[in-house]
Parts: sequence; C-alpha cells; structure tokens
Amino acid sequence: MRFSHLFTKTSKDAQSDAASINADLLGRGGYVSKTMAGVYSYLPLGLKVLKNIEAIVREEMDRIGGQEILMSALAPKENWMHTGRWNTVDVLFRLPASEGSEYALNPTHEEVVVPLVQRFVNSYKDLPFSCYQIQTKFRNEPRAKSGVLRGREFIMKDLYSFHLNQQDLEEYYAVAQGAYDKIWERLSLGERTYMTYASGGSFSKYSHEYQVLLPTGEDTIYVSVKAEKEGNRIAVNKEIFEEGKTICPVTGGTEFRPEKASEAGNIFQLGTKFSAPFKLAVPDAKGELQTLVMGCYGIGISRLMGILAEAFSDEKGLMWPAAVAPAQVHIVPIAKAVDEEAYAKACALYEALTEDGIECIIDDRLDVSVGVKLADADLIGIPMRVIVSPKTLKEGQMEVKKRSAKEATMMPYDGKALRKELC
Amino acid sequence: MRFSHLFTKTSKDAQSDAASINADLLGRGGYVSKTMAGVYSYLPLGLKVLKNIEAIVREEMDRIGGQEILMSALAPKENWMHTGRWNTVDVLFRLPASEGSEYALNPTHEEVVVPLVQRFVNSYKDLPFSCYQIQTKFRNEPRAKSGVLRGREFIMKDLYSFHLNQQDLEEYYAVAQGAYDKIWERLSLGERTYMTYASGGSFSKYSHEYQVLLPTGEDTIYVSVKAEKEGNRIAVNKEIFEEGKTICPVTGGTEFRPEKASEAGNIFQLGTKFSAPFKLAVPDAKGELQTLVMGCYGIGISRLMGILAEAFSDEKGLMWPAAVAPAQVHIVPIAKAVDEEAYAKACALYEALTEDGIECIIDDRLDVSVGVKLADADLIGIPMRVIVSPKTLKEGQMEVKKRSAKEATMMPYDGKALRKELC
Repeated sequence: MRFSHLFTKTSKDAQSDAASINADLLGRGGYVSKTMAGVYSYLPLGLKVLKNIEAIVREEMDRIGGQEILMSALAPKENWMHTGRWNTVDVLFRLPASEGSEYALNPTHEEVVVPLVQRFVNSYKDLPFSCYQIQTKFRNEPRAKSGVLRGREFIMKDLYSFHLNQQDLEEYYAVAQGAYDKIWERLSLGERTYMTYASGGSFSKYSHEYQVLLPTGEDTIYVSVKAEKEGNRIAVNKEIFEEGKTICPVTGGTEFRPEKASEAGNIFQLGTKFSAPFKLAVPDAKGELQTLVMGCYGIGISRLMGILAEAFSDEKGLMWPAAVAPAQVHIVPIAKAVDEEAYAKACALYEALTEDGIECIIDDRLDVSVGVKLADADLIGIPMRVIVSPKTLKEGQMEVKKRSAKEATMMPYDGKALRKELC
Repeated sequence: MRFSHLFTKTSKDAQSDAASINADLLGRGGYVSKTMAGVYSYLPLGLKVLKNIEAIVREEMDRIGGQEILMSALAPKENWMHTGRWNTVDVLFRLPASEGSEYALNPTHEEVVVPLVQRFVNSYKDLPFSCYQIQTKFRNEPRAKSGVLRGREFIMKDLYSFHLNQQDLEEYYAVAQGAYDKIWERLSLGERTYMTYASGGSFSKYSHEYQVLLPTGEDTIYVSVKAEKEGNRIAVNKEIFEEGKTICPVTGGTEFRPEKASEAGNIFQLGTKFSAPFKLAVPDAKGELQTLVMGCYGIGISRLMGILAEAFSDEKGLMWPAAVAPAQVHIVPIAKAVDEEAYAKACALYEALTEDGIECIIDDRLDVSVGVKLADADLIGIPMRVIVSPKTLKEGQMEVKKRSAKEATMMPYDGKALRKELC
C-alpha cells in the first residue's frame, strides 16, 4: 500500500467521540469513519484489520465443523412473533415496509436459522451439525457512545449448533470453548481473556461470556483468585456475583477480584427455546419425535477491532498484533524527491517484500516532514517500522524498530535479517 | 466438501417462487433459502458462488485503482434530506429509531460516501481516486418476485470515483468500462452482455447499463444491428428507444432488434449532483474552488448469481461456469458400503485433488441410489462429474463427464488426464 495512493488520511484532531479510546485512535489513524453515533464505515486500513480478524475466526469455526452460510438481515415479523420476541426485545429495529407490512432488522438470527434448518433436517441421522455466518447486525441502541464497541450496526460471527439431546450439545459446547480459546490466543488476547460465568436462562445454569480485561471496559467481572493461582482464567459476571456468597463454579474458590473488562464473545445453551416454537423436531432411532437441542456461539468481529485497538495502544497510537495488522512493515524513506537514493531504495525494498507476500505500507509522501511521517507510523501502529535514509544507507543499513519496542536496531539493507525477524 | 457433511439438501419439489427460474434452481440445488419474498439466505454452496463472483469483481476493481472500504447500511435521515432524496426515493426503507429519530437503510451510498470522502480530500493533489465496497443493500420493493434478481435485500459492488473536472471523469469512466468488460468475460457472460445506452440524467446525455441476454429477462433492450455486424455488443434501453427515431450512439445505425435481457450492472456520470449539496469542493492548482465531479459504478453481486443460474442451466439443473462454480469436480462413487473398493478409491481421489487445491464435492452418501446421485449432480451443476465404479476400476479407469457435454469419456484413475482437463 502506497501512502500517496491511500485516499484516507491520519488526523491530529481528537475525534468527535473521543470519550471512547477506540473511536479516537481508529478515527485518527484513518481506520474508520463515523457515519453517525454507533454506526461506522470501515476505511481501507480498517477493512484489512476486520478481514484479518474474520479469517482467524472463520478458520477456527471451519475446524470445528461449522458450515459457513450468510443469512438475511431482514426477517418477516411473523418469525419474531412466533418466538414471542417481536414485542420483548427492546433493541429490535422494526421496519415499516410496503403495503403495511413490517420486518425485523435482525440483531440475532435464531428466528431465521431455525426455519432455515427445518427445511433440511428430517432424521436423527442428519444430526449433529453446526452452521455459522459472519454478517452485519443491527440494534436500536438508545445511546451509542463506545465507538465500535457497542454499535447500532456491527459485524458478528454467530454459529448455531443442532443436537438430538442435551448430552450431545454439551460435548459440542466444550469443543466450541476450545475453538474460542484458540481464537483469543491467535488474536494475542489469550492472556487477558476470562471465561466468565453468566446467567444461563431457562435451559442451563450458566452461559459464558469471554471478557477481555481492559481498564476502559464497560463491564465489571469478578476474577476467581483460586482459578488464577491454578493457571486458569475464570470469572463470574456482575449479574450473578453476590459478595460473600458466590462460589467459583470451576474451583469452588470464594475469593474474587473485580476487574474492568469488555465482552468479546458469548456462548449459550439454548435448549429447545427456539426449536420448540418452530416445531423443529425429528424422529430418533426409536422413531420417537425429539425436539432439537441448540447452542449458539457469538463473537463480535467489529467489536474485537475496538477491543484490540484499546488493548494494544499507547499515548502515541495503535500497536496492532501481527495477526491482525493491516500490514507487517511500515517503510519510511527519508527523502524529499523521487530521484534520491533513499527513496529509490525504499521503493525497491517495498517491491521486494510485497513480491514475497509480506504486506507493507510505504510512506512515499514527499511533501511531508520526517516528524509527521514518524508520528503517523506510530499512530497507525504497524508492527515493524523501517527507515531508509542517506545516513543508514551509507553503511548499507536500514533502521528497524518494532512498534512495541523502545529502541531501534540497525539491519543490513538487503532485508535478509528483516525477513527472519518477520517469521 | 463431503455430501454427508453438508447440512443442506437438494429438493425435487418446485420451490414456492418457482415462477422465477433462478429461485427454483437455486432453491432446489440447495444454494439459497428464502427467508421471505425478495429476501434470501445463502447456503454453503451458494455462499461459495457469491464469494467467487465477489473475488473476480474485487480483482478488477483493485486493478483500476479502486480502494476497498465497507460503508454502513444505516445513514442518518439528515444526509438523505440534504440531497432531497429522503422523500423522493420510493424504495427507501425509513427506519424508526430510538428517541423519535429516523434512519435510512441505504439502497445506494452517495449519501454516505460523499460526507466520508469530504473528511479526507483537501486539495486537487488528492484527486482523482476511487473507492468501492461489496455490501448489503435494501430496497422497499412493493413486489419482489424474481428470486435473487430483484430483492428487498441484495449484495452490490458500488464504486465511486472523484475528479477535479469532467474530462478527468470521462477518462476514468472509459477505464471502468474496460474493467466491466473483463468482468463479464471472466464470468463467461461476455458473449451475451450488451453495453446498453440509458438516460443520463442532468449531467450527461447517457448512462450505461450492462444487460445480459436472457429469454426470461425482465427488461427489453434494442440491440444495434450495425454495431453487431462490426463485432460490438451495443444496445439502447426501452426508456430511450423510439421506433424509427433512435440512432445507435456508437455506429449511427438505425436498425435495432428487441431482445429480452437482465441488468447485471450500470454506470453513471453523476457530475456534481451529490458533491454540490454536501459542498464537496477543493481548490484547484490556481486556488479556485472546484466542486468535485463524480462517477458511480454498480454491479449486482447476488443478482449476478441469479443471472448466471438462468444463463447456464438446462432442464436437469444448473451448469456453472468454472470461474464461479462452488467446486470444480463432483465425484460419485458407485458403492453401497465404505469398505468397497470404489468407495475407498473415490475418497482417495477426493483427498488427492483437494490436496492440490482443486475444490471437489464427493457424494459419499451410502443410503441413496445411483439415479438420485446422478440427478443431484446434474441439479447442482459442478462443471465436471467423475464416476468411480467397480466397472470403471476394472480397467483402471473412471468416467468423466462435463456438465455441459452430452457424452462421458473414460480417463485413467490416476487423475493425470483429469488434472490436465481442469487447467
């Protein structure tokens, strides 16, 4: 990516919703553009981050047998009436349509996936299976003020699993928990993500939230101190925590520490809550009709972009983990004209790395000071910054600095050492 | 893809909106599932076709310098009031939101992209550029009855270009026309797609539709016979055609032939229609403020899936062109148990081809007759069908049949000849 080609720009000005760190950093870095409160457009760099997050989530969902589909954002009112949620879900957008009809603009997809699956499942032999989508959802939030963390429009991965009985659901639920752990690990969030017990509704004692510790988090969770001592990250959410009464469901410990956190995903055992009203049932091996048992497994994709921005940043800007960064190397030539050696060599490095499949940004702007270029590199937060200048080239070198490191190091211009570092 | 793993199924029953060929074939083939009239969910096979179409469109948009972004589906009412379209676009969904506010559910994105671009463009030096998205749009259609061809919810690619003056727009417009031609070519639609002159609005004499000849098409176009004789596919749409009066804008010919067709894309010169109300203007080299001149370039992604389904099918089912097919090879073992040689050899072939990056479907169902399997293969419409049976294996062979061919041929089981055929 050439800076001179990118139509977006960084900004020094605090963004209009600067109260939210993610909105401020992502806005100033040229990652997102606010359409209105709680509604964002993703700019070229931001879309790359989203796609990187999506790819990781997709891989892990495929690995546990999830079949990718893409469901509609609209659903007929009758589906939501059927489950009784048309009138009870307060954030549901109810859309007036032609000829007096109304549609739901789905904030979640049980009302679509159950009738969809019903067309295909006729026998216990078709079970179990799971399907998922990565798709845009809508919530009529009265107040939206946390940047991309709590939006009126947001991108979710939602997987639904279908089972003949509770035991089969529980087995898959554990498999999905494993996949979720891998996802946090791959996003560099493993160390700060807590499996957090939450209220389970009518069909199971608990549901589970995946809460990422963040000083700016909108939730408070209660970390099990005993679990932590045993090397596990377990917590209980505010809703079910009672001072002096709560017992850690995993360790039996009674000591908890409150922490600020932000929710990245949640998983539920739905039981027959949605299959029953739609009569999603099949004969079992004995020919007896069984209502399907369901699980649902969400991850906030656009929300994760905000969480990662808040978790990996400092006063200078963003510090993306390599797995989601929009590029791996940010090349800065120190040159004022295209015919200078540093400019030509920086471009040659850019071409060579790009050829090798390493995503790079080159700041090929000529009308901008070195100070501005370096400040922009810090703000944009690519993992590795490379400066090519007349001074470094004199020694056949370039200056390489990790965004997360304090000090730069010199490396030979040939790029061999840099490539090694990137592996 | 293993048939036994796929949760969706083919269906022998005509679909509820069988009046539309694409809805019937895509529904029966297990590609889409109707949520409600004009609103579809895409099943695993259907999503693969969509992604293949998207990938081709994306590549060609990137090639002409388009920068991919992802804009919001929601926009504030004020943006649409600003251009005067809140009250004039009859298919606009107007969404009641919290605290008495209203949002637009965008059917097109001029009202979002112009304010977005305004944040970044300060000088003539920032021009020209173009950005695009592949995104879900919404139209409040009073009647939706053409399957995925005219939906209330649909996936579009929309690119917007920004220029200092009309001449610069015209140059880019021609470049975009070239990219569009490449896209139809790659989708195997080149031979039947006509650049069709349409009304241009206030800023140019013409806009252009890309119309694909289809006996079931919802539009009538008038093909320029003289252009056709010269080897070009040019037409005029119904709106601007006048019997005995219309002259072909390219050849000057006056002979036209009516044809049924379906619109796959359209391009417009927008002039300053949207930049003016938002005051999107920059100083030119002389310091004089110039309102930006815009172009817009649409392609219906989900619509193309329907067009391709109608253009490439016969009475037995779909016949996807290789470039968009959800798989390249459909392997059918003739076997009743997993321990039969034909079953094992078919699986081994599936594994080997998959390993080589060739997408395959294997119909590994054991409880289904050969007749049903072959009918399903024809319905699903993968370009190449391979039968592995005890009879073919006796000669070390397998039976290979192109979906579009009448006759099958025998090829050695080792797959070398098949691989050659696939290249």
